Amino acid sequence: MLIDQKFQFNIFRATLFMGALFMCCSLLNAQRPGVILTSDGVERIKSKLGSIPLLDQTLAAAIEEVDDEMKLAFEVPIPKHLGGGYTHDRHKRNYFILQKAGVIFQLTGDEKYGQYVLDGLKAYAALYPTYDQHPSNLSYAPGKFFWQSLNDANWLVYMSQAYDCIYDWINKDDRKHLNENLFRPHAEHLALSTPRFFNRIHNHSAWGNAAVGMAGLVIGDKELIQWALYGANNEIPGDKILDENGNFLELPEMKEAGFIANIDGAFSPDGYYTEGPYYQRYAMLPYMIFSQALANKIPEAKIYSYRDGILLKAVYAILSQTNTAGKFFPVNDALKGMSYKSRELIKSVGIAYHFGGQDPRLLSVALNQGKVTLDDAGLSLAMGLANGKAKPFNIPSIQLTDGANGKQGGLGILRSTFEDGEASLVMKYTRQGGGHGHFDKLAFTYFHNENEVFQDYGSARWVNIEQKGGGRYLPENRSWAKQTIAHNTVVVNQKTQFNGIVKNANRFHGDPYFFKTGDEIQVMSAKENNAYGNTKMHRTMALIKHESFDAPVVLDVFRIQSDTINSYDLPYYYNGHVMLTNFDYQKESILSPLGEEHGYQHLWKTGEGSPSKNGTKLSWFNNDVFYSLTASSLESDKLLFARIGANDPNFNLRNDPAFIIRRENISGNTVFASTYEIHGKYSQVAEVGTNTYSSISSVEVVLNNNDYTVVKVTTVNKEVLFFAVSNNDNSVEKIHDLKVDDLKLNWKGPFLFQK
Amino acid sequence: MLIDQKFQFNIFRATLFMGALFMCCSLLNAQRPGVILTSDGVERIKSKLGSIPLLDQTLAAAIEEVDDEMKLAFEVPIPKHLGGGYTHDRHKRNYFILQKAGVIFQLTGDEKYGQYVLDGLKAYAALYPTYDQHPSNLSYAPGKFFWQSLNDANWLVYMSQAYDCIYDWINKDDRKHLNENLFRPHAEHLALSTPRFFNRIHNHSAWGNAAVGMAGLVIGDKELIQWALYGANNEIPGDKILDENGNFLELPEMKEAGFIANIDGAFSPDGYYTEGPYYQRYAMLPYMIFSQALANKIPEAKIYSYRDGILLKAVYAILSQTNTAGKFFPVNDALKGMSYKSRELIKSVGIAYHFGGQDPRLLSVALNQGKVTLDDAGLSLAMGLANGKAKPFNIPSIQLTDGANGKQGGLGILRSTFEDGEASLVMKYTRQGGGHGHFDKLAFTYFHNENEVFQDYGSARWVNIEQKGGGRYLPENRSWAKQTIAHNTVVVNQKTQFNGIVKNANRFHGDPYFFKTGDEIQVMSAKENNAYGNTKMHRTMALIKHESFDAPVVLDVFRIQSDTINSYDLPYYYNGHVMLTNFDYQKESILSPLGEEHGYQHLWKTGEGSPSKNGTKLSWFNNDVFYSLTASSLESDKLLFARIGANDPNFNLRNDPAFIIRRENISGNTVFASTYEIHGKYSQVAEVGTNTYSSISSVEVVLNNNDYTVVKVTTVNKEVLFFAVSNNDNSVEKIHDLKVDDLKLNWKGPFLFQK
Repeated sequence: MLIDQKFQFNIFRATLFMGALFMCCSLLNAQRPGVILTSDGVERIKSKLGSIPLLDQTLAAAIEEVDDEMKLAFEVPIPKHLGGGYTHDRHKRNYFILQKAGVIFQLTGDEKYGQYVLDGLKAYAALYPTYDQHPSNLSYAPGKFFWQSLNDANWLVYMSQAYDCIYDWINKDDRKHLNENLFRPHAEHLALSTPRFFNRIHNHSAWGNAAVGMAGLVIGDKELIQWALYGANNEIPGDKILDENGNFLELPEMKEAGFIANIDGAFSPDGYYTEGPYYQRYAMLPYMIFSQALANKIPEAKIYSYRDGILLKAVYAILSQTNTAGKFFPVNDALKGMSYKSRELIKSVGIAYHFGGQDPRLLSVALNQGKVTLDDAGLSLAMGLANGKAKPFNIPSIQLTDGANGKQGGLGILRSTFEDGEASLVMKYTRQGGGHGHFDKLAFTYFHNENEVFQDYGSARWVNIEQKGGGRYLPENRSWAKQTIAHNTVVVNQKTQFNGIVKNANRFHGDPYFFKTGDEIQVMSAKENNAYGNTKMHRTMALIKHESFDAPVVLDVFRIQSDTINSYDLPYYYNGHVMLTNFDYQKESILSPLGEEHGYQHLWKTGEGSPSKNGTKLSWFNNDVFYSLTASSLESDKLLFARIGANDPNFNLRNDPAFIIRRENISGNTVFASTYEIHGKYSQVAEVGTNTYSSISSVEVVLNNNDYTVVKVTTVNKEVLFFAVSNNDNSVEKIHDLKVDDLKLNWKGPFLFQK
Repeated sequence: MLIDQKFQFNIFRATLFMGALFMCCSLLNAQRPGVILTSDGVERIKSKLGSIPLLDQTLAAAIEEVDDEMKLAFEVPIPKHLGGGYTHDRHKRNYFILQKAGVIFQLTGDEKYGQYVLDGLKAYAALYPTYDQHPSNLSYAPGKFFWQSLNDANWLVYMSQAYDCIYDWINKDDRKHLNENLFRPHAEHLALSTPRFFNRIHNHSAWGNAAVGMAGLVIGDKELIQWALYGANNEIPGDKILDENGNFLELPEMKEAGFIANIDGAFSPDGYYTEGPYYQRYAMLPYMIFSQALANKIPEAKIYSYRDGILLKAVYAILSQTNTAGKFFPVNDALKGMSYKSRELIKSVGIAYHFGGQDPRLLSVALNQGKVTLDDAGLSLAMGLANGKAKPFNIPSIQLTDGANGKQGGLGILRSTFEDGEASLVMKYTRQGGGHGHFDKLAFTYFHNENEVFQDYGSARWVNIEQKGGGRYLPENRSWAKQTIAHNTVVVNQKTQFNGIVKNANRFHGDPYFFKTGDEIQVMSAKENNAYGNTKMHRTMALIKHESFDAPVVLDVFRIQSDTINSYDLPYYYNGHVMLTNFDYQKESILSPLGEEHGYQHLWKTGEGSPSKNGTKLSWFNNDVFYSLTASSLESDKLLFARIGANDPNFNLRNDPAFIIRRENISGNTVFASTYEIHGKYSQVAEVGTNTYSSISSVEVVLNNNDYTVVKVTTVNKEVLFFAVSNNDNSVEKIHDLKVDDLKLNWKGPFLFQK
């Protein structure tokens, strides 16, 4: 793994910083509450109540929720169930409710809420010493109240806040009792009982670090704070074990552990998190909460300036990975409904606004979120909105680098707005993403507003729905969702990238080739040289605005270079109902799986066709809009129709359709060149369609050699567009001079777009 | 066909009425415009412009649309294409635009719009005599500008309105030219060239009648008005021909033809239209437009009082067949996106409000529609809304009788509101519905707000999308969508009802048995005695509100009586993703069609299981809500999983899932008893589900004899509910006294619900 000089410097700086931070511990700000809600903040919020609608609504909703819960007896059941089961959900709800009750106590002064928190914590203190750990034995790091320490860390992060809110109000004996019989031992359990849990560079550890640190800040226990920041100094056993998802745990290559080491290791300099935005959202919360607590309790440490403000950059990075509905692009293991409306992002946006210079564009995100946190950060947002300061958050096209040093691939996102919304195109050439990574280098997804034009499957999981495998990852996540064929990228010889071996995949990353934004054409280009041995892949995707089209058009040039004879499958998970093809096909009368392994066993083959002479056209219809794919084809290509759902014994898979261009027995270079159009509309009440046909008549590869690939696009109006890529020189200064038959092409830089 | 005395009287009254109406023709109101827009109305609207938002918005939108169109040359292409094709869509758009341009001319006084209408009509007058008819030969009644006269009738209905708006403004020569070379000959073509088109009791004829009548009222041609009202007095040839959908045309059994005869024949006394709401919406428009023109031009005829105000009742009847999104329940051939936001319903609601006593509930429908018509009716609505008079339109549970005499079956609709919206349950025991009818007696659909819990497939068609069979019905509409297996009702011996023969089906109708609304329980019960010879069916469906459930629960008791040994399939088109079953099943490793005919050839068999001892449970998930079916089962029942899509060579079918309870080799009586629950919710951003399990542990049939069927429902909380039906006596006064083992049941009326 390459660690460049800048990164070395970061490590060095981090060490310095950690020393500084530890020094600061002697200077712990003594006000209480003081970790998230502050005593000054309480006064500020109280003075504004009744005058700022969003703040009032949020408080009223919290009071209603807590009051409803307080009508019932506070229950602390003996732990038994997994995620989605009764005791799991009860303990989870308990920590959310007590944290809110603590805040309400501070803001309203109504002591019944303080008493509720105190009684609840005492009930936990009574339960705590009565047993060793959660009775299930399914996690590498079992918790006390939950089946995994991860959930217990969540519990401690929230309960520490609840405790902070009543700390000065309760008597000494109760404080001593709770400190010694609940908070300290629980923090110890998290920090010391499973070093693999606490001392990795991993979202689990970040949660563990934050939990132990929060408890330490609240009860003033400097040892806990030291463990949280530095790691608990335990050796990590050398044995290899499986985590709860069946992946081998990767031991950290750096000696450093703890919160600061996690900040260094988790984010790229752009704020990208290698597991992707779904997990970034989850992983962000401990970073955000604990950093907010550090900012409040040890302001001298300037945590939000650390590493060029990486924690605030991370907020912008995750927001830049959303579609127009605020839903995260489904990179790696991801549930597709997750969005910036989650509590984690409500928290993060508040912090980024409050501690990061009050960027008015964040207010429009907060407006869509419809909630703020009940603390200084939430107050800032609510006041900004009440004062009409919000500005639109127009997310630009962006390339997010991956890796702690920013040199390990990246995620490319091109966006283009038009009359009917936004087209957003995402290409992945990041690292593998660890155990939650998918084998999908150079895969893309394409959104038309919230609609998936070409979808990524996401993960095979129903989080916290007990009846689906206890809410955990389902077997099909590994056998299907992670496999290459489940993604919109080329599969070589029907095998998954890196043969599906995570350890091998973790050693490599995709390579950005060039990334260019602009008005008329935006282009991202990347290479993948390791996934398939000597078979190298290079994908260039352009998002084009052109007067011949009523919406942006994607031009996709996927080039493969090999010295062996291979077969290639390029699957498209088009989303919708087939309207039209320009080729003959035969539907199957009996359905069989398309293969036996590498995910193919989960695809029913539903039909097969052969390309027409003019290349391949497929049009489909979804949510009242028409979409078309137009591809260059070899005469020998096979065009397969498929549907997900074979070998799915428990109805775990969605039965979505696919279209696969199969090219067999190819030696040397080959190119898949295609365009993807959004066009036309249909009104279901007027029963009228407009622009229901594709505007492109053909896509042809007119040149493909070692140096250049040239593609010609012809519209139905007989306009001709040329797109050329320099395959081995991505210099922006390089002058290219090329003759293809009678056509002369001259340009500067890695690509040419000529009308 | 039974024609009872009341209906005889209606025929008699209609005859009198027609005489009166014809007399009135001499009294034609001479104001122009005067058919839809009236000269008085123009003054009223002009006086309100600028003060009523919805009216201003509607006019502004119309001006914008017409202005955009006026930037282009007005094109009158030589007819060539079918629905969805260029010339079809162009001519269609032309009549919408010219009608609007006429209205704008009247309301703004801007002569450029008048000139645009005049020039457009002259262009049509120039084209008209140059050829005989549309070049396609696919309709039984080819039109001039369109492939079928039906579309030409639409053209004439709109163009007559456009002409009315400029009639007094243009010079005599132009009037004479347009009257003699366009309007009269076109009306003649529609009235005389295809008697089968003009003289039936059918929506085609209603359009034809209205078109000819509108032209007559505008140009003052009493012969046209007479034809429109009475029929064109042509003999209908005795030969049998196919209509454009491949159905044999049914010749009218009554001698009467024309508009009044259509009013008498088309609607039941409740305003139900036998083809169902999708076609009622389409068929309503000629009734509404021509009746509005008659009300304006011949007010003495009191058209809206005719037949106890049947035309206004019809508006309420169609509105009562909508879900909470205003979409029509998909009865028979129907496209499921169609709703009360269609132009036909915007027109109809305006007329019902303006001519029907200004019911303030209609204003809330108009508010959702978001548009009004630019005439007196639209002005009334817009003023009502501007004055804040709107009241909620809470649609009650209702049984709509079918048949001109109201004695030919019906459609039952039960509704129940709860915290998460509305549950609406629809059972069909109507007539066949003619050529657009489906063979689905006693089928049901169930909605949770806009979501289909159990869906009706609707029709296999993409209206006006040329690439799908020219926008016409697809072959799969007949081979799949109409078949019994495509619906949520019992299929006997894997055969479609009436063996799929429309002519046989048309002779019969379902029989309402009882219909009871109420707070705690609402019940509808109906029988079908003809679809399967000596095998008789009786379905009773209850919608229950009970404190054990957080949403209404459906109890379904489907009883079958036969003297032969049969096999029964009860398919459920559950909508969503399987979450849980209580039985073992095996998914198929190779998929084959479930059968060879009667629609079964279109179902892939995807799995099979056997019931557990406690009956059958299936839970699924859709749009973040959980749903459960709990059914009584025989040990020998087979539980089949299936998916639509086999034998679908052109991707014409949606690939939706089904669950089928199969009961084979049954002699005598049998009962399928089941409950359907809506329960729980899931938050995709909080990743928390509530109430994700069914609350019902079992449904058992404890008695089923010739006289009674008794079902026992046990909840997971061990509560027991009994539901009993008297199978042969539906008297509301009858006292029943029944002993089942130790259980004594006493009640009055056709059913018992006991907790």
